[in-house]
Amino acid sequence: MQLSIRDIAQRVDAQVRGECERQIDDVAPLTEAGATHITFLESAKELKKVDQSAAGAILVTEELADRIPECEATLLIVGNPFTAFIQIMDVFRPARTQTAVGISPEAHVDPTARIASGTCIHPTACVGARAQIGENCLILPGAIIGEDVVIGNNCVIHPHAVLYPGVQLGERVIIHANAVIGADGFGYRFVAGKFERIPHRGTVIIENDVEIGACATVDRGMIGPTVIGQGTKLDNLVMIAHNCRIGRHNAFASQVGLAGSVTTGDYVRAGGQVGVADHITIGSQVSFGGKAGVITDVPSGETFHGIPAGPEKEEIRRVLTLRKAPQVFEQIKQLQKQVNALQAQLATLSNSDSESAAA
Amino acid sequence: MQLSIRDIAQRVDAQVRGECERQIDDVAPLTEAGATHITFLESAKELKKVDQSAAGAILVTEELADRIPECEATLLIVGNPFTAFIQIMDVFRPARTQTAVGISPEAHVDPTARIASGTCIHPTACVGARAQIGENCLILPGAIIGEDVVIGNNCVIHPHAVLYPGVQLGERVIIHANAVIGADGFGYRFVAGKFERIPHRGTVIIENDVEIGACATVDRGMIGPTVIGQGTKLDNLVMIAHNCRIGRHNAFASQVGLAGSVTTGDYVRAGGQVGVADHITIGSQVSFGGKAGVITDVPSGETFHGIPAGPEKEEIRRVLTLRKAPQVFEQIKQLQKQVNALQAQLATLSNSDSESAAA
Amino acid sequence: MQLSIRDIAQRVDAQVRGECERQIDDVAPLTEAGATHITFLESAKELKKVDQSAAGAILVTEELADRIPECEATLLIVGNPFTAFIQIMDVFRPARTQTAVGISPEAHVDPTARIASGTCIHPTACVGARAQIGENCLILPGAIIGEDVVIGNNCVIHPHAVLYPGVQLGERVIIHANAVIGADGFGYRFVAGKFERIPHRGTVIIENDVEIGACATVDRGMIGPTVIGQGTKLDNLVMIAHNCRIGRHNAFASQVGLAGSVTTGDYVRAGGQVGVADHITIGSQVSFGGKAGVITDVPSGETFHGIPAGPEKEEIRRVLTLRKAPQVFEQIKQLQKQVNALQAQLATLSNSDSESAAA
Repeated sequence: MQLSIRDIAQRVDAQVRGECERQIDDVAPLTEAGATHITFLESAKELKKVDQSAAGAILVTEELADRIPECEATLLIVGNPFTAFIQIMDVFRPARTQTAVGISPEAHVDPTARIASGTCIHPTACVGARAQIGENCLILPGAIIGEDVVIGNNCVIHPHAVLYPGVQLGERVIIHANAVIGADGFGYRFVAGKFERIPHRGTVIIENDVEIGACATVDRGMIGPTVIGQGTKLDNLVMIAHNCRIGRHNAFASQVGLAGSVTTGDYVRAGGQVGVADHITIGSQVSFGGKAGVITDVPSGETFHGIPAGPEKEEIRRVLTLRKAPQVFEQIKQLQKQVNALQAQLATLSNSDSESAAA
Repeated sequence: MQLSIRDIAQRVDAQVRGECERQIDDVAPLTEAGATHITFLESAKELKKVDQSAAGAILVTEELADRIPECEATLLIVGNPFTAFIQIMDVFRPARTQTAVGISPEAHVDPTARIASGTCIHPTACVGARAQIGENCLILPGAIIGEDVVIGNNCVIHPHAVLYPGVQLGERVIIHANAVIGADGFGYRFVAGKFERIPHRGTVIIENDVEIGACATVDRGMIGPTVIGQGTKLDNLVMIAHNCRIGRHNAFASQVGLAGSVTTGDYVRAGGQVGVADHITIGSQVSFGGKAGVITDVPSGETFHGIPAGPEKEEIRRVLTLRKAPQVFEQIKQLQKQVNALQAQLATLSNSDSESAAA
Repeated sequence: MQLSIRDIAQRVDAQVRGECERQIDDVAPLTEAGATHITFLESAKELKKVDQSAAGAILVTEELADRIPECEATLLIVGNPFTAFIQIMDVFRPARTQTAVGISPEAHVDPTARIASGTCIHPTACVGARAQIGENCLILPGAIIGEDVVIGNNCVIHPHAVLYPGVQLGERVIIHANAVIGADGFGYRFVAGKFERIPHRGTVIIENDVEIGACATVDRGMIGPTVIGQGTKLDNLVMIAHNCRIGRHNAFASQVGLAGSVTTGDYVRAGGQVGVADHITIGSQVSFGGKAGVITDVPSGETFHGIPAGPEKEEIRRVLTLRKAPQVFEQIKQLQKQVNALQAQLATLSNSDSESAAA
């Protein structure tokens, strides 16, 4: 597919600086773009890369455009270059359209399951007894929809994702490949020298617009449900343990792990590999730096870093301070020597003083 | 389903304080329970929550019951409220009974595999050549039982769990969804600028009563087996590398990772995200705090925390001490000034002394 | 199977010290070997274990052989005991030969997919529209080959590994069970209080001779591809986020996580649970200690440890220094007291001096 820069400018309502008739056939990142590619400038930091780019066209704000020296690329001035770029990417690389396979005869669908219209169940997917699946869902190959699972409209369950029996999904939920929702929580009683499983008869409730990454796991609650709040996004390999109540619009990067019965407010963000101890309560609008180890409750609005995690400012101060430790500890040695010398000097002085007094 | 409190009291041998005829229809956590729910009081810490609870009935010890002020809920006095609660949960929410599907015609079972009586193989599960599966096992949809795998009686293999060829499971083993047992260990020789795979011809032996979490991985040994000892429980996303020998009744929380050839004794516990370096030997009754980074052998009975991990007391002291570093380092600056001042003062004094002596 | 030590010696070109006619029937690790087993001595550190070994034969270098005291085992002197051992292991425990199932009628292969000769597609595997698979590949049960995926010759895709649409694999690539390649990157725009998915229309390119562990995840790029360079090995549960460009012959141990847009050179090694922040650039021949938290670019040739990660020497010095903190902080208290005493003493002395001067 090819579009002239003029065509593209019309689509994103851009003002053009430079050659208009050039043909564009794909999108590309700034430093990898060639003469037939369109790219975008995200921030002033990237201004220096424009020189190295062979891009045919660059989406850019007016302010940044004025700071680009004479260049080969045609500039398309827009209010939000990233948004415009995504719009154009959608033209050159449209989203895949899944063939509507309906309910594949090679899927394994229990006769008591209820599947609403427009939903596709792919080969080797399994839908258990009494499961209910809403409209226009995509149940991809090998996805397992356990007994009594309820899935809302417009959900996508990627290959081999496993929903244990009784799990409930809202609308527009996306579960990526090999994620596991609703396995039994890691709860045991220690009886007579053995771990005895505590039965887990709660479930998992996943609210509207949640997306869960590949190989992530969300365990079922013991009595009540484990809840993932509306709009929350979990990256690959994230672990949410039994009885957690995750608020709305949280975003947890890869390999984050929450132990049992953690509660979070809304708009909580966690960098990769963050760990939160069990029964911790986290407010809203909280951020955790990567690898933070959270062992205390965190009030709303805080940014915590470190192991154990504390307020960002304190943690940064701590890290910077501790970097100086080798020099400081050396300084202390010197101080000790100076003090010892002073003591000796003073002792001599006192003596001579006494002597002179005695003289 | 409904039961009167009188009925419930009989089932768990409880002494009743309060209304006996009230009907109960479900279990619930203390703070979420309503008038037709029964809940339990786990410890004195929860006494203050009783007020906020609308529970119809509360299982509680005699000691704690005496400390609860006048309340709406009927109290059921028992020796162990948690045990009694689980008993009652089993009544209101019985464990799912899997339909006995036998060997599904939609499963893929090699004709040379031997399946004992009472075992169900669900659709899309695969059982390889010469595999042996004991009695009353549940092989759920998509589970992969590799060639020559041996599985004891009463095991549950959840959807899409993968047992590589030759893996051996004892009795009553539970493998959760998408766990992978017996992949090749991460062992390579570096030859002529490339990593060359070291063949792994050992296996994995999983002893009786082990439970392995969703998306956990246990790699096969190179020569001998990787062993998971009897009664050990691994949470989701745990990694056990090649040649590890895990003792009996260990419990590792989510995202724990053991590098190759680690040996543990019995009753070892690890919090989430603990990492253990290769070839480390850990005694029995050892505990690791969450996120600990273990790079030395650990004797029996120890509790280790921190990165690198050390004895709990030292680690707590270290953390508390280091928190003071900014103030202490400030204090050192002041000390240095004081010492400098002292030196100057003393120099003056010596001089004046010499002068006065000379006078 | 049985071989005499004489036979074995011939196969690995070994010089024999001791009994030649003894029959050997298996390989074993040094400390677990019995009278009919052959084992090997890896280094001088293991010399003291020879006594405890009941091995029938030991592969060993001449140098180490001279340091072994009189023993029951026959010694086979070779240049490289480990290489010789692997050669013999291959005799007693040959690699599994997969039955050539061809394209199983129980696999789900789209009619537009192109499968080259010698490739086997096992039952319940799915191959999407327009996928191309090279020669002599093994697509094991339940593996998902998405639409438009391209796979080179001699690849192995283990059970339930999922290749999302459009992913590209070179030759001799091994993908272990339940790994997920090509899921959408964790990229959202925050618009009007909600996370809005950023479409990811890039792909994943996996070059020749890469091996990817069980339950590892490699996300697709947003515009360009995420790349795993030739010969690189990823262990189980590793996460490579969108837009990363991993160089050649890297080796990342289990549970390593790279955030988005990380670039690495060649021969980079990371211990378990290392985390790298987004947009970091790492040179070639870089090593990271286990659990390192990398938040700065790292030049070629460096070894980094710690959280945040720094040069190994500095980090070791830092750790050793900080261990002394409790004592040092105690010392500072003493120093302060000494300084206070000196000040008091000096004040007295000054006074008496003034007095004596006044006298």
